[in-house]
Amino acid sequence: MNDLIQVSDRLQVFGNLESNVRSYCRSFPAKFKRASGHQLWDAEGRSYIDFFAGAGALNYGHNPPEMKKKLIKYLVEDGISHSLDMATEAKERFLTRFNDVILKPRGLNYKIMFPGPTGTNSVESALKLARKVTGRQTIMSFTNAFHGMTLGALAVTGNKFKRSGAGVPLNHTLSMPYDGYMGRDVNSIDYIESFLKDSGSGISLPAAVIVETLQGEGGINAASDEWLIGLANLCQTYGMLLIVDDVQMGCGRTGTFFSFEHCGIVPDLVCMSKSIGGYGLPMALTLMKPELDLWEPGEHNGTFRGNNLAFITAAAALDYWESQAFSHEIEEKAELVCNALVEIVASVPELKGEVKGKGLMQGIAFEAGIAEKISALAFERGLILETSGTDSEVIKIMPPLTIDRTGLVSGLQILKDCIFDIAVDVNLLVSHP
Amino acid sequence: MNDLIQVSDRLQVFGNLESNVRSYCRSFPAKFKRASGHQLWDAEGRSYIDFFAGAGALNYGHNPPEMKKKLIKYLVEDGISHSLDMATEAKERFLTRFNDVILKPRGLNYKIMFPGPTGTNSVESALKLARKVTGRQTIMSFTNAFHGMTLGALAVTGNKFKRSGAGVPLNHTLSMPYDGYMGRDVNSIDYIESFLKDSGSGISLPAAVIVETLQGEGGINAASDEWLIGLANLCQTYGMLLIVDDVQMGCGRTGTFFSFEHCGIVPDLVCMSKSIGGYGLPMALTLMKPELDLWEPGEHNGTFRGNNLAFITAAAALDYWESQAFSHEIEEKAELVCNALVEIVASVPELKGEVKGKGLMQGIAFEAGIAEKISALAFERGLILETSGTDSEVIKIMPPLTIDRTGLVSGLQILKDCIFDIAVDVNLLVSHP
Amino acid sequence: MNDLIQVSDRLQVFGNLESNVRSYCRSFPAKFKRASGHQLWDAEGRSYIDFFAGAGALNYGHNPPEMKKKLIKYLVEDGISHSLDMATEAKERFLTRFNDVILKPRGLNYKIMFPGPTGTNSVESALKLARKVTGRQTIMSFTNAFHGMTLGALAVTGNKFKRSGAGVPLNHTLSMPYDGYMGRDVNSIDYIESFLKDSGSGISLPAAVIVETLQGEGGINAASDEWLIGLANLCQTYGMLLIVDDVQMGCGRTGTFFSFEHCGIVPDLVCMSKSIGGYGLPMALTLMKPELDLWEPGEHNGTFRGNNLAFITAAAALDYWESQAFSHEIEEKAELVCNALVEIVASVPELKGEVKGKGLMQGIAFEAGIAEKISALAFERGLILETSGTDSEVIKIMPPLTIDRTGLVSGLQILKDCIFDIAVDVNLLVSHP
Amino acid sequence: MNDLIQVSDRLQVFGNLESNVRSYCRSFPAKFKRASGHQLWDAEGRSYIDFFAGAGALNYGHNPPEMKKKLIKYLVEDGISHSLDMATEAKERFLTRFNDVILKPRGLNYKIMFPGPTGTNSVESALKLARKVTGRQTIMSFTNAFHGMTLGALAVTGNKFKRSGAGVPLNHTLSMPYDGYMGRDVNSIDYIESFLKDSGSGISLPAAVIVETLQGEGGINAASDEWLIGLANLCQTYGMLLIVDDVQMGCGRTGTFFSFEHCGIVPDLVCMSKSIGGYGLPMALTLMKPELDLWEPGEHNGTFRGNNLAFITAAAALDYWESQAFSHEIEEKAELVCNALVEIVASVPELKGEVKGKGLMQGIAFEAGIAEKISALAFERGLILETSGTDSEVIKIMPPLTIDRTGLVSGLQILKDCIFDIAVDVNLLVSHP
Repeated sequence: MNDLIQVSDRLQVFGNLESNVRSYCRSFPAKFKRASGHQLWDAEGRSYIDFFAGAGALNYGHNPPEMKKKLIKYLVEDGISHSLDMATEAKERFLTRFNDVILKPRGLNYKIMFPGPTGTNSVESALKLARKVTGRQTIMSFTNAFHGMTLGALAVTGNKFKRSGAGVPLNHTLSMPYDGYMGRDVNSIDYIESFLKDSGSGISLPAAVIVETLQGEGGINAASDEWLIGLANLCQTYGMLLIVDDVQMGCGRTGTFFSFEHCGIVPDLVCMSKSIGGYGLPMALTLMKPELDLWEPGEHNGTFRGNNLAFITAAAALDYWESQAFSHEIEEKAELVCNALVEIVASVPELKGEVKGKGLMQGIAFEAGIAEKISALAFERGLILETSGTDSEVIKIMPPLTIDRTGLVSGLQILKDCIFDIAVDVNLLVSHP
Repeated sequence: MNDLIQVSDRLQVFGNLESNVRSYCRSFPAKFKRASGHQLWDAEGRSYIDFFAGAGALNYGHNPPEMKKKLIKYLVEDGISHSLDMATEAKERFLTRFNDVILKPRGLNYKIMFPGPTGTNSVESALKLARKVTGRQTIMSFTNAFHGMTLGALAVTGNKFKRSGAGVPLNHTLSMPYDGYMGRDVNSIDYIESFLKDSGSGISLPAAVIVETLQGEGGINAASDEWLIGLANLCQTYGMLLIVDDVQMGCGRTGTFFSFEHCGIVPDLVCMSKSIGGYGLPMALTLMKPELDLWEPGEHNGTFRGNNLAFITAAAALDYWESQAFSHEIEEKAELVCNALVEIVASVPELKGEVKGKGLMQGIAFEAGIAEKISALAFERGLILETSGTDSEVIKIMPPLTIDRTGLVSGLQILKDCIFDIAVDVNLLVSHP
Repeated sequence: MNDLIQVSDRLQVFGNLESNVRSYCRSFPAKFKRASGHQLWDAEGRSYIDFFAGAGALNYGHNPPEMKKKLIKYLVEDGISHSLDMATEAKERFLTRFNDVILKPRGLNYKIMFPGPTGTNSVESALKLARKVTGRQTIMSFTNAFHGMTLGALAVTGNKFKRSGAGVPLNHTLSMPYDGYMGRDVNSIDYIESFLKDSGSGISLPAAVIVETLQGEGGINAASDEWLIGLANLCQTYGMLLIVDDVQMGCGRTGTFFSFEHCGIVPDLVCMSKSIGGYGLPMALTLMKPELDLWEPGEHNGTFRGNNLAFITAAAALDYWESQAFSHEIEEKAELVCNALVEIVASVPELKGEVKGKGLMQGIAFEAGIAEKISALAFERGLILETSGTDSEVIKIMPPLTIDRTGLVSGLQILKDCIFDIAVDVNLLVSHP
Repeated sequence: MNDLIQVSDRLQVFGNLESNVRSYCRSFPAKFKRASGHQLWDAEGRSYIDFFAGAGALNYGHNPPEMKKKLIKYLVEDGISHSLDMATEAKERFLTRFNDVILKPRGLNYKIMFPGPTGTNSVESALKLARKVTGRQTIMSFTNAFHGMTLGALAVTGNKFKRSGAGVPLNHTLSMPYDGYMGRDVNSIDYIESFLKDSGSGISLPAAVIVETLQGEGGINAASDEWLIGLANLCQTYGMLLIVDDVQMGCGRTGTFFSFEHCGIVPDLVCMSKSIGGYGLPMALTLMKPELDLWEPGEHNGTFRGNNLAFITAAAALDYWESQAFSHEIEEKAELVCNALVEIVASVPELKGEVKGKGLMQGIAFEAGIAEKISALAFERGLILETSGTDSEVIKIMPPLTIDRTGLVSGLQILKDCIFDIAVDVNLLVSHP
């Protein structure tokens, strides 16, 4: 009771003035003040380990010093802050670095678009371009997909609660089963193809397919390489463009810069945002094969396409990708996480947990209700982690990629303790119904 | 020829790597490096007077020193940069200041939503909420309106070129004539009402009306107070919500903080972005009457709702609004601009210019082609100003509100010279066809 | 009370078994048994004068003897009754007669489509073809238009009550003001053109415009010749197809076979149904300029395109149109009706009636409530006439075109008496409130 | 060559005057004059056996004498021909007979709606009502479904060619796999349920499911009883209305009056047309459970809801259903057909035919091209049968239900001969490529 009052006191301004739509401040009821690396501190001086990483916007941790230094220098020197889509030195530097460090070494030849500073902006621009290039209207998306909150992106998002917020029918889209949706034995690619090749299936040939290689919001569902390759082939066969939404899975989250690198497919369009800005600053990219760049000047525009502070930190963030070292580091941490999760799940079989995910986007799926309890308890003990899935059934481990071994182990230990304590409660409940 | 090569050299990286969709870098072909107040400098050291102000995102000028100082301090102290919609000290300070400095003194009682950091995000959220609250789907918008590029906002935007970029039909909207659209003698409110009250008019009762009090992109068309009051009454009579899109006209552009203050209407929802962040950083607000705040937690979300660097500068920017002084200052400058434009138009009657607008959003409408020539010539002479209107027929004067008298007079002198020189060309053309 | 019981007894089977959607049997609560010319008889032997003519499907009266004879002969000889769209002698004869009697003499060169046997089918086919030919999606329609109940036709219908029955948003249409809608002084063609020529008006260029030359259901609103010619010119200028829905106004209702003959326009597409079958049998045509006949075989189909019994009577009905005599006859009757209505209106100025319409589609507009009372009282006295307008505010005089002078005069006398009696009631009400 | 000229001569009027959309007159290039029972005669006196039955509109054969007699009597006595939805004796008789002969004995309690005289009208009305009753918009339909050509019905039709004729996106629908679509081993009901119960599947809960128990146009695909029962259960569980489109399969086509009788489900809504009129006259019904009859009077209307000539023959046709005898007769003929088809298929294994269907809606599926050749050859030899399936891959045997044994055997013999002759050609082709 005392605690509740304190919380409500602490967050009174938000309760009074901010719309009811606010959400994370309800799960994590602290007022944060300062952050560095994988740690945050609230106004009362309490520290927290961050296994949430700004929902993927803070892959390089909070306020990484090398970027911070460059950012302050740029501010001090009165570098351009806001430039619409005018040319600036900061933008030129980012473009050059992105091409040299990311695109060229991977043999990728993409034109780069700045579609507005958010993921949903990038998705909207990709859908527009796909429709323009093909002259078709339907976009195929997948069950449990998450692509954004503006009307075009929402129409390819699976979540019923979010969709109903639209207030209008969400059309011109086709929701198809993601890998594994029809059970592990059924290949949903075959099923999708039957709809495409059949002239009586009641659907229109899509302009494009939009897909996440791993569904972070939708329950940490990873598509297999075979499935992704099958999907890319389907796109080729039927003349649909392949759009990979790498907003959350890009920038190294799954181990490589792009999440699709390891399986060898080359999407026609790629959506990037979140950690692309490096420092958590709003920025987004849409990558497109040059032959698809049929935009007219200004056909898609926006005020904040030129967030030059983000260009500075984004360019600096690319330093991580100069060599393979960062990827190897992520993989090692990913293995550590995976082993820990497998061990936890094995230790509390009564919770029937299932380890999911890859890279530093992993989690454990439980029955409804458990994951939310874990998240709440962990927060009380100084660990921030979110749930995932439309029923919040998955506890999600998504630390900054730069987290050190100590931080990672500490966080996992808190998680383990919480799960064990909750298992005790569940067991008590079971034995004394 | 030499010049062309130089331009293309200078911007080669952009031409090679950036999508064809880029636009302002074509009208203003320089590579900018540094900026302060109302001035920019390019990489070659040339200076420019800014009569464009980041399309309204830089009402307080480039890198205003007082905000810059606070921003650097916050960075140095490792303040939270990115926070989704978690509570932070920076956000609390902004909320409190916005309430104390803006809302309370104006007797406004709005709940504040952070809908994602761009104007189009704010518009999308307002449309969603209006549809949810009323259970209706249609939104009434106006000829020549501009509200954004994502699918929901684009559907209420008038511009045909932008609309066709959608690639799908833009539905659930109703485009009605803006003030003056049917000629100065016809009251378009009466016409609109005939559609609303008539059970045979073929339209559905809209959930809401979205309107700009002055159409900045659509040709600098200012609605009269009578018309806006008539529209607000119509909304009341027919149970439609009134949404004012103050993304460009808010934050003092027309003289008062909100553009609708002087006419006494109180919108149900207000969309803000652009200069709300103070320093040109991506940020947006949606204001709503408390009784309309029927959002479920998380029903609309987004990664960059918590751009804390913007909260720091946004809170600092509100210092300008502590007294009436800033408003008076804007009005004085507005008068200076207006007088200058009227004089210019009178001096070159052969160009048939028409002065439009109010506050520091003014312009001259010409026949097609003229305004673009003026903009190009002015840029060569070190003045940045944009055109407006679907046929780019209006030359737009939109300096930072903080521009000093010297800067303003210098810019207007360049503008005047350009117009005179172009008038000479036009006259020559007329006399020697 | 006794009467009510009798009515409910009489129509008990309908009340028990038929859906609540039934309507005319509520306004005209008799069980009809037999009909001939302009008269019907109910099961109890009561006779009624028909000023309703099957809502325009019985322009030649009930069971015209010459058609009846041919129909029975055809049945006796086992002529084909149903033929999908296979070739039959009956169909060939109709096609030939329609070309020889109707099209050729009017210099019209239309291809003929049998779109299914109802008006709404014809409208749906015309909209499909217009969209196919132009590659555009929007159809412009008018306030108070009525075009049918299936989803495509409903979307161009103005009536709010009918529209809301759709249960889904009705899109891809644009409702514009009909002639006179903005007041007699405002030319709505100019207003419409401003939307078409302005690249910022927020609408898409329509594929076609669908119009009734006189709105029969929407309140008996007749468009002027100037307005129709202006509309046709607008279509030409902007490359929109002109569709005239002559379902109710065709087949002589306004004096000429097609309602648009007198003003000299040549629509791109014409929709016909109702009286085209001659005997009240379901049949419809869609006429199109030959260069628009881009249909693929079977692209629009339907089971009852080949209603051969209707072809027999439809061909016979064309005999009426061999000379100008029938048109002259209609005009004379129209004048008689008009004079009578004008006189009635003048005699009861307190009812503020307004005579509307032309040909044998005329009526008097009253304040809400009056027309329905007139219709009910008239029915009690043996005269069937319907109301029109979305608020049922117009009493509609629409007898068979073949009605003789005696029938016409008798019906008008009943109407006059009813109106006078209702005026007395209204006066009493006014004097003794 | 000579033949071609003759055909084109014979059908010259149609080629000159009728739209290109005409189709069956191309497959069956004769000009028909007379018909009786299962036979037609063309203008040149040639006779044809009818295995097409007006696409299901002539289940009782051409011009059945008992109905013809009643129809002529009614005409002679000047019975009402056209009545909108006013009450007539003919309509009352039909309603009473339909209730007594069809509904009551089957324990069905439906309210009856006359939605306009075609199948597509009935479907449109059912979709409207389902949306109104549930307040939801989406309708679930199935791959290869056929429901009609107007915009609402077309949106639930699977055929790509027909759909693209709409010229606008067909929305508010959800196409799901019909029984067997995912292979005989996969239960598509489970798959559909996974979309319904999952809050992340990207679809909205449908207002209703519309289904044919056997897809006649879509390739003669019969749903199993288990599947239909599973579907009905799904509807119950998720609160979706079940609409059975019995336009083609009703009136005895599969052996019972309603096609769903044998599996024991009771749809919420039933669409009927085609043979309901008995004599091939345009007529349609929509049946609804009384608690769903939430129509407002006149909310759906139409000119030809009261085709009284059809009511006369429709009531007479119900005499066939007074006892079980007619059903038994159909079953016997169905068995005869089935045996013949099985034998044919077995005799020409090289054609890889597959017998499909039930009742007197049977067919053989071949590889593409074969069925069309069979249909063309059979027509030359005096047998009319159509193909089915989106690639016209199925030859369809659909005689009048009243065909006598001699007619049936003769027709099957012609069919057999044609198939054998075509097999010879194919074999020759194979051996001498």
